[in-house]
Amino acid sequence: MTDQRIETQNAWLSPEEIAMVRNQVPLVYVEAVPVRCDPDGKVTHVGMLLQQAADGSISRMVVSGRVMLNERIRDALMRHLEKDLGPFALPRVPPEPSPFTVVEYFTDPSISGFYDPRHHAVSLAYVVPVTGECEPSQKALDLAWFTPQQAVSDDVIREMTSGHDRLIRLALASVGQLP
Amino acid sequence: MTDQRIETQNAWLSPEEIAMVRNQVPLVYVEAVPVRCDPDGKVTHVGMLLQQAADGSISRMVVSGRVMLNERIRDALMRHLEKDLGPFALPRVPPEPSPFTVVEYFTDPSISGFYDPRHHAVSLAYVVPVTGECEPSQKALDLAWFTPQQAVSDDVIREMTSGHDRLIRLALASVGQLP
Amino acid sequence: MTDQRIETQNAWLSPEEIAMVRNQVPLVYVEAVPVRCDPDGKVTHVGMLLQQAADGSISRMVVSGRVMLNERIRDALMRHLEKDLGPFALPRVPPEPSPFTVVEYFTDPSISGFYDPRHHAVSLAYVVPVTGECEPSQKALDLAWFTPQQAVSDDVIREMTSGHDRLIRLALASVGQLP
Amino acid sequence: MTDQRIETQNAWLSPEEIAMVRNQVPLVYVEAVPVRCDPDGKVTHVGMLLQQAADGSISRMVVSGRVMLNERIRDALMRHLEKDLGPFALPRVPPEPSPFTVVEYFTDPSISGFYDPRHHAVSLAYVVPVTGECEPSQKALDLAWFTPQQAVSDDVIREMTSGHDRLIRLALASVGQLP
Repeated sequence: MTDQRIETQNAWLSPEEIAMVRNQVPLVYVEAVPVRCDPDGKVTHVGMLLQQAADGSISRMVVSGRVMLNERIRDALMRHLEKDLGPFALPRVPPEPSPFTVVEYFTDPSISGFYDPRHHAVSLAYVVPVTGECEPSQKALDLAWFTPQQAVSDDVIREMTSGHDRLIRLALASVGQLP
Repeated sequence: MTDQRIETQNAWLSPEEIAMVRNQVPLVYVEAVPVRCDPDGKVTHVGMLLQQAADGSISRMVVSGRVMLNERIRDALMRHLEKDLGPFALPRVPPEPSPFTVVEYFTDPSISGFYDPRHHAVSLAYVVPVTGECEPSQKALDLAWFTPQQAVSDDVIREMTSGHDRLIRLALASVGQLP
Repeated sequence: MTDQRIETQNAWLSPEEIAMVRNQVPLVYVEAVPVRCDPDGKVTHVGMLLQQAADGSISRMVVSGRVMLNERIRDALMRHLEKDLGPFALPRVPPEPSPFTVVEYFTDPSISGFYDPRHHAVSLAYVVPVTGECEPSQKALDLAWFTPQQAVSDDVIREMTSGHDRLIRLALASVGQLP
Repeated sequence: MTDQRIETQNAWLSPEEIAMVRNQVPLVYVEAVPVRCDPDGKVTHVGMLLQQAADGSISRMVVSGRVMLNERIRDALMRHLEKDLGPFALPRVPPEPSPFTVVEYFTDPSISGFYDPRHHAVSLAYVVPVTGECEPSQKALDLAWFTPQQAVSDDVIREMTSGHDRLIRLALASVGQLP
């Protein structure tokens, strides 16, 4: 395994292998919506990376990535959180295995509204409180924190593609903070 | 596509293709725990098929199967429910996309306690009220309905392998009926 | 118990009794968001009554009411659904006891954004598929069904007060249908 | 407000007032199941107090108490957690408002299996990871941490009354750790 491989979402599979699998089965993904909470656990801010999305656009996105063979979902969440937010973010993956929603990405955007031109992915989405310092990886141009009001504003929605803005609204709703 | 293929969980993929994919990525599964409810929605019985499990044993099991490429989770649930319970079961797939639990099946039973010798599967599990007449398919030797008390009894647990008894307890807990 | 009492949310308590209790403890409420689903369980429409709200305005609202002493939550849901939607609505109260959200109504609208000038209420909110014919009670001026897109439109939001529009968005998010 | 009042669950109401209210409406309660998690968020231990239960017995119990007038649920959870586990427990109340279950305590134990001889209470139950040092209050004889296996063992269940053992199993199920 090379370093180069680790830095891609296709780690452990060659490009040929992943291309082949993509044409045969849906892939398992996880998504983590990083949030800041007040001391009572109420969400005050949601974190979004600015980076190149699957559709090629520069988009506001949450932490996202593939679950690998023989990897537990918790381990996949921790691996992608560390990769995207750095080693000092102190994410708190929730104890419940049940995600707040399941996002189905299809290559045909009309099926679910969630779109990925590369493949069909079934993504388990979790809200993850983050208490430490975040250092976004090189891949990301920026990591910014938004209040719930800002996160659903037209200005921020304009920076999102492929249904990512809807995912943010679903996450805010699950914590009772959708404006 | 032949009829024979439709009757297997590997529909749409040849045995060689599914064998290859299994060695590369986790597969997406759905599980439906069929229940009978009283008029107020309280679960009174849970349904279990008696059939050959992935580990080769004859085991009490819930409805279970793979999600195919480009298939929505709802459609996979309906397809497997009809296949296993017959066309007149009138299953009511819940409106929420979030499963009551996510079961991670590994080829190593020590990782999660849920075991599948064939592959790593990530299974989204739903409780599905069933209001019609059930006619289990040829594959199943029997379909029986158990009260919550019976479903967690030693006699019934003895008929389950690979963690299926735990799945039933998690399902009963999610509807508040775990004894 | 008089007919007049039955038609109020304060059934079983005299006006003096309920006034006194309101000044001492929060009241337990239930809210049911009636929905129509397609055969796969996907929500296609949400139902809203047009009636006088607690703040005196004529507002679009979901089914709502108090849980009485020694009454189970399921029974309170069924009672209020029948009272507001008529005896042929065939509501399907979900088997899970956990609500999709908990709405906290305060007499101070700044605390949670959910407002009730009468009292502090803790309301357990459920999405309830309805499969029969609805006949809104005399109290309601109208019952109308809205697509998710319509339910979050400015026109419909304008008809809602006291946070009811937010409740609808939270309900749609819980079933994955928030636009 | 006297110190004596603070130490009772009936804070802010005189004994006469609470006795009167109890005969008229269900009371709103919160329950917090304290847990220890590993760094990935998987629950490894559940904490239980040993103290006098509502039915007079000495029982293993989770953190529990009334929600007061005009108090947010989050604030009630934090107040009872601090009261029972001390000021250095560092509880992490989850960001979601939805409880993992709703426990209905009745004075008739046959209705739900959850029993409180004092009153009808509707209790919103949350799993709360605790990361600091716990110092149980004077009221409690002991605070002990149990693995999931221990928590569902006959020895520990024998120390619980009024349905508290079922509540622990429901909590463990919600985090996927019911044995």
